[in-house]
Formats: sequence, structure tokens, C-alpha cells
Amino acid sequence: MSSYDAWIMTLGTEVVQGRVINTNASYLGRKLTLLGFRCIGILSLIDDIDAIAKYLTLILHDRPRVIVTTGGLGPTYDDKTLEAIAKALNRKLTLNEDAYNMVKRKYEARKMPLTEERIKMAYLPDGGIAIPNPIGTAPGCWIEVDNTIIISLPGVPQEMEVMWETWVESRLKAIGPSIYIAEILLKIVGIPESSLAPIIKSILREAPAELYIKSHPKGEELGKPVIELYIMYSNKDRKKAMEIAEIIANKMIDSIKRGFSTSIEILSKNIT
Amino acid sequence: MSSYDAWIMTLGTEVVQGRVINTNASYLGRKLTLLGFRCIGILSLIDDIDAIAKYLTLILHDRPRVIVTTGGLGPTYDDKTLEAIAKALNRKLTLNEDAYNMVKRKYEARKMPLTEERIKMAYLPDGGIAIPNPIGTAPGCWIEVDNTIIISLPGVPQEMEVMWETWVESRLKAIGPSIYIAEILLKIVGIPESSLAPIIKSILREAPAELYIKSHPKGEELGKPVIELYIMYSNKDRKKAMEIAEIIANKMIDSIKRGFSTSIEILSKNIT
Repeated sequence: MSSYDAWIMTLGTEVVQGRVINTNASYLGRKLTLLGFRCIGILSLIDDIDAIAKYLTLILHDRPRVIVTTGGLGPTYDDKTLEAIAKALNRKLTLNEDAYNMVKRKYEARKMPLTEERIKMAYLPDGGIAIPNPIGTAPGCWIEVDNTIIISLPGVPQEMEVMWETWVESRLKAIGPSIYIAEILLKIVGIPESSLAPIIKSILREAPAELYIKSHPKGEELGKPVIELYIMYSNKDRKKAMEIAEIIANKMIDSIKRGFSTSIEILSKNIT
Repeated sequence: MSSYDAWIMTLGTEVVQGRVINTNASYLGRKLTLLGFRCIGILSLIDDIDAIAKYLTLILHDRPRVIVTTGGLGPTYDDKTLEAIAKALNRKLTLNEDAYNMVKRKYEARKMPLTEERIKMAYLPDGGIAIPNPIGTAPGCWIEVDNTIIISLPGVPQEMEVMWETWVESRLKAIGPSIYIAEILLKIVGIPESSLAPIIKSILREAPAELYIKSHPKGEELGKPVIELYIMYSNKDRKKAMEIAEIIANKMIDSIKRGFSTSIEILSKNIT
């Protein structure tokens, strides 16, 4: 496993039961990928301490650099993420002073007392750093164990996203691989995926390891198969990243045009 | 673990990298839940045989009744799901006659030859049953190991859904728990989640084990907190399922009204 592997855990019975579409997963997968981390997996689990602790322990065995969790930080009986993390790390869950002050200020501003359920949100696993929540009440948590950073954010997408943008992203960027990601998306009409497969294979055979190509069948237009072809290439040098992605895209287009009567369109080019 | 536990594995690097929103996960989570299965987790993984085989093996240790996988059945080099399942089950991947005939007919109808990449889609782990794909080319696979059924469907949502509806669902219903699921969704304006928490806790304390309640903060309206409260109750008896769900909903509404000045609306009632 590379030293930039990442995992995402989106926790909540409502996610697993399919009552919500998991946009947190795609948001974080995309953000981590664009920071140069290699996302290995996204795991959604029911609100069950034992299940969360067990699978977190299994993922920790693979020594990813980052694990981002969402959900389960709130005041209700089934918000159990930090308890599960404490269990997996064999640490105590203790009242964190910074988190306590964050929660206290929130309820003071609303002229509400600090009940048991509200104080619960200020308990972090020992060694945890509280992440401020600018729009909600539950703080997040940043905790390091060996070479892995576990970052816990709330499940409410608006809260998760603002905490990612204002606090988490810059810190992960600083420890990330500092690479540029070039992406090119092609739309190819008139060739089935099974005919594209050997062309992709032969291009990948001679390509650098940082190249990633994936074909996505998108149904048919006027009886002709439509494929979206995604090309991603990463490099320390911004200009080189896109140059090589473009060379690969042109090679793909040439190879396809040589064998098939197709129409090919560049849907997007992107460098991050 | 109960004998109706279920897992979902949505396989594909594009899912893990967040380039697509994982609607297959929510579709299957919802369908399995409404059939009475208890979804424990949803795992998305990159297109890597070793990673898929490893985590499938770990999930199999928990002996769920069903594991549904999506993605990785197609003709390209990175469609590796059935190879990974074969590896996890320590079975051979062999040409399946039914699957072969399904693939053959598809390409004959399109007047296309059977290339290596196309025939690849007809290889199933030993003991696998081919699931017809009415609108695409890659067959699915139903395979049993000990008490677990592993069902593999394509990642293209339209293909996955039609295969679920026409072939998979009736078979899973026959082995499922034959229960009815009553659902009531309330919208509560004027009480923060942290004040609702002890009310939910006290209702759950006296409630039957089949009751599930979850609160979802939905931001604010005119400065007042908005919560959606989901109540689910399952029972062998259709009428009783909804009756008890309604008793619980009324109990919730009474308890909230007693302590707080709120407006409460029933957003939906549903029995499946």
C-alpha cells in the first residue's frame, strides 16, 4: 500500500438503508483524489459501535494515511462514531476542553442550557483535536494513530463541507503528495465497450503507472453505443501532467478512429 | 448477527474517487430493507482483485444471508468482480454455458463476433448461476456459499435495476423474513435535535426491538430548527405493523408537544 492511501467511512443507518443518497461519499472521494490521495474504499455502516470499531480496526491494519468519517457526532443515542473510534484505538473517550468550549458557546448564543446530550458532543477519544463546526453544534475530531490520521466530520452535508473547506483541506494538502491531477473526459459514439477494451489495454501496457483510464457505458444514441472515457494522469509538474494526458487522449482517439467509424468529442479537460 | 443480515458492495474506482454519486447503493439498501433484510454495510472499493477478495472474505466471516455486488462485470481489463469472488471463495472461474449463450445471442443479434473480451463476460465462479441481462451484455451471477448468497449485478444503474426487478427480487423475497415494514416520517419545527434526543431515548426504552427511530437535522426555517423524524416498525402482520408505528408516532408527538412549542407535520406514511 502506498503512503497516500485513503479511506472514507460514511456512518449512519439511514445511509445503509438507502433512505439518503450518499453525496458525502462522492464529495470526499473527489476531494481526496484531487489532493493526490489514493482512495481505496468507502464504507457505510449502521449506527453500531461494535460494527464500526471492528471495520475501522480492519481498515487500520492496511495503514492508510487518512481515514475520513462522516456522521454519528450528534447528540442522539445512536451518534456513536467517536465512541467506536475510541474503542478501535483502545483509548478513553474524555471531555475535550476545546470541544466543550465550542459546544458551550453555541448553546449560550442560543440561550439554551448545557444538557447531558449537548455535553456528549464534547467527548473525544484521548489525543483528539476538536475541529470547529461553523454552522452546526457538533465539533469534528482529528486524531493520529501511528501513521494514520482519522478525521471525523458530521453527517449533515453542509456542516461536513464547510468544515472540510475551512479546516481540514489545508492540513491534508500540507501532508499530501503535492501533485497535479490532469483529467480528460471523452464522449465516444459508435463503438461498444467490448471493442474499446483491447484498445485501452494496449495503451495502458506502454503507459506510465500514474495513468488511469476508465470507460463508462452510457446507453445508446440513435441505436449507437455511447461511451464516456475518463483519462487521468498525475504529475509533480503541472504542465507535464496535462501534456501527457493530452498525448494519451490523442493516442486513444487515433487508435479508435483507425478501427471504427465513430464520433469523438472532448467533454472536458481539467487540471487540479 | 441475525440470519437476515445483508451487505452491499458497489465496486468501481469511479465510485471511490467520487466521480459518480452512488445511487446503486441507495437503490439496493432501500430494496433490501423493504424486503425485511437488515443491511449492515455498503462497501465501495477500487477495481483491485486483491482488495475486493480480501474485504469480501472479511464480510463473509460475518455470515450475512445476502451480499449484493454491483459493477465490474463488463468486458474491460478492470472489470474484475467475478475473478475476485472466485478468489475469495477459492473456486475456479470457468466458462458458464448459460452465460455464454446469453452473451453469444446478444452479439449475434448485433452481428458482431465473439471476441476474447466478450467471452470474458461469460466466465463465472464455479457453481454460479447466470442472471439474464435484458438490456445490456454482461450477465449477472448468483452464487451460494455456506448460508450466504452472493448476487453480482452490473454497475450501469438501468441494467442493475431491471435485473433486480425481473429476476433477483422475487427470489430474495422467497427466502426473506416475510414481514411488513411500516414507516412514518414527521417534520418537526421548533426543537433542536439535542432536546429531541432524550425524548427518543425514553420512547425507545419501553419499545419493542423491531422499532427504529432516527432524527435528521434539516437546517432552519425562519430561525427555528427543522428535524425530520423517521419511525420504522416491522411486523409479520400488515395491520399491526402500521398500528404500532402510529401509536409510537402519536406518543412522540404528545411528548414533544408537552415540553416544547413546536409545529409537527406528518410528511408520509408508508407500508411495504
